Amino acid sequence: MTPIDHVSRVERLTLRLADGPLGNGCDALLFLDLTDVRWLTGFTGSNGWVVVTADGVTLGTDGRYGDRARAETASIAATVIVEQHAPRLHQRLVDTLSGNSAVALDASTTSHSSWARLACEVALEPTGSLVKLQRQIKDEAEIARIESAARAADAALADVEPMLMDAVDHPLSEHDVRTELEYRMRLHGADDRSYDTIVASGTEHAARPHHSASRRTIVEGDTVIIDVGALLDGYHSDMTRSWVIGDPTEQQREIYGLVVAAQRAGLEAVAAGVAAKSVDDACRRVFDEAGYLDWYLHGTGHGVGLDIHELPFHSQTSDDVLAAGMVVTVEPGLYRGGFGGFRIEDLVVVTESGHRVLTHSPKREL
Amino acid sequence: MTPIDHVSRVERLTLRLADGPLGNGCDALLFLDLTDVRWLTGFTGSNGWVVVTADGVTLGTDGRYGDRARAETASIAATVIVEQHAPRLHQRLVDTLSGNSAVALDASTTSHSSWARLACEVALEPTGSLVKLQRQIKDEAEIARIESAARAADAALADVEPMLMDAVDHPLSEHDVRTELEYRMRLHGADDRSYDTIVASGTEHAARPHHSASRRTIVEGDTVIIDVGALLDGYHSDMTRSWVIGDPTEQQREIYGLVVAAQRAGLEAVAAGVAAKSVDDACRRVFDEAGYLDWYLHGTGHGVGLDIHELPFHSQTSDDVLAAGMVVTVEPGLYRGGFGGFRIEDLVVVTESGHRVLTHSPKREL
Repeated sequence: MTPIDHVSRVERLTLRLADGPLGNGCDALLFLDLTDVRWLTGFTGSNGWVVVTADGVTLGTDGRYGDRARAETASIAATVIVEQHAPRLHQRLVDTLSGNSAVALDASTTSHSSWARLACEVALEPTGSLVKLQRQIKDEAEIARIESAARAADAALADVEPMLMDAVDHPLSEHDVRTELEYRMRLHGADDRSYDTIVASGTEHAARPHHSASRRTIVEGDTVIIDVGALLDGYHSDMTRSWVIGDPTEQQREIYGLVVAAQRAGLEAVAAGVAAKSVDDACRRVFDEAGYLDWYLHGTGHGVGLDIHELPFHSQTSDDVLAAGMVVTVEPGLYRGGFGGFRIEDLVVVTESGHRVLTHSPKREL
Repeated sequence: MTPIDHVSRVERLTLRLADGPLGNGCDALLFLDLTDVRWLTGFTGSNGWVVVTADGVTLGTDGRYGDRARAETASIAATVIVEQHAPRLHQRLVDTLSGNSAVALDASTTSHSSWARLACEVALEPTGSLVKLQRQIKDEAEIARIESAARAADAALADVEPMLMDAVDHPLSEHDVRTELEYRMRLHGADDRSYDTIVASGTEHAARPHHSASRRTIVEGDTVIIDVGALLDGYHSDMTRSWVIGDPTEQQREIYGLVVAAQRAGLEAVAAGVAAKSVDDACRRVFDEAGYLDWYLHGTGHGVGLDIHELPFHSQTSDDVLAAGMVVTVEPGLYRGGFGGFRIEDLVVVTESGHRVLTHSPKREL
């Protein structure tokens, strides 16, 4: 796979700071969000901080991650600081920041206690993360990883779907389905699952959009929702398909048809320059016209990358605007206790004229 | 399994508030940390807040989790508020808190932006979480879950160890070992892995205490560290074993022996009333006397429960004191680039006179 180009990401930030302080007066950027840290520097440890100034990048971490930090940040020539004890590592951060007039830090991913402690020693400015906004647009190397992850999930689902269709004769639980899917994604090349795979069956579990797979045995007549993604080199995929076990009822057929139609309408709304909210509007309109809007319990989608949920968001309260290179889900569903539920979700790359689909598992007709 | 008794946990908190405001003047407790929320109420969704006053518990969540929240909190008779849109759910939180003179909130697990937004509308007092301190002491139902999780990890490791011992003739990668371990923990009854299983082999990977399993093929002469735990009903287990592939060198034998001795010394130091730091001291002394202290790159252990890392911590900077019913790891290791590394870790329940071990995989002699 093409390596991720961290050098140009760091260059863009350091050049910006070389032009003078940011609009809020900051001449240093501090990153504590480890996903931002990974995107910017390549460091994958579970503890650390990164400071960017016009002079370059400094990364601090603890003794568990020193070797890894040096190896992963060699291309960007980061200065790596390793301290085994947390108080000393904090002091090294304060030392690194001293001499700067103000430090930009993302307030939404920093704990209040960390903020308050650091604010005693350094002038902090709350900032929506510059990096989080940049992370929305994926480059080719990132899209290749997401696409490979999606392929592993497609292949695993193709393995497991026959077991599900055979559930009446050979009973299996939601947990069994999840176990096999997650195992097979790895056999098909994934590093891991993207998130705890959702397998939701029957009148109550499938009525919960984010049900966790239980030991419930799947039985004839069930609606079943499977929401499954893979992880590859840090990048996530995300996909949902739905089924009925055995012959569907008229109502099941009707509701499933509405979800398929809404999902198609949502996909058709995706294009560069479009408000993310309008993707949600497009799905909602289909449900509203059919009188089922109160069965729709969540937003229509989100960005996917190094985080499974990241900017932009397709929801009624979103101000986000789609742009070419964003990777987003389109995932309407209908849910009702006593009935069950259905959701259909694809992962797509936004293009100038529309979108390109990354998830290829077939959507069965009922 | 015995159900978790959330009723008595809630009762203790509400009775305390019925006696009057806390020392910091608070007459309401707000919980945003979802692990605290789960411990207190049983709610397992990925979004929500809980308010506790003398009158009882109110839980707010979004449309994905309404049914789940009502089902999981039935025993504590929580008032459940469901709002699909985040701004409305926030307003309902403000409404729920209005009328209280001050609200206690854990500053270490609340983002600065959430804190700052809420502090405009409610008098907040930063608090070390009362619940986090209580969570340290496990009851019998919790210990039973952790012990069952540990058994699943023991059984999976017993399945996979022969593959590792046969790696010279039938090559396999770190990733292959992780894939089989995590799959087999579920076949042996676990809901899931406890954390991303560490499989670290050879002179560089095994020299990193928190290496992520890679596609590297395990070869003769490698030191190998496997750090593996299972998850059961929300509770974690944690264990590490180490090996040499093929015949060990004299140096490998020496270093492995030191790690075994240090781990035994650490275990012997565990008992109710003992400073957690002294467990770390006991391991460190063994390494120091042998001249290898600078190969020891981390603290000696931590509490385990609904979080894989929770209070108390065995480290040089810890003020924690062990008490009966705590479940903690003891996990010294030695690491050096060019050599590799070893770590041995057991999970134990602290008792009045010492400890009871929960992880039973054999520690091989070299």
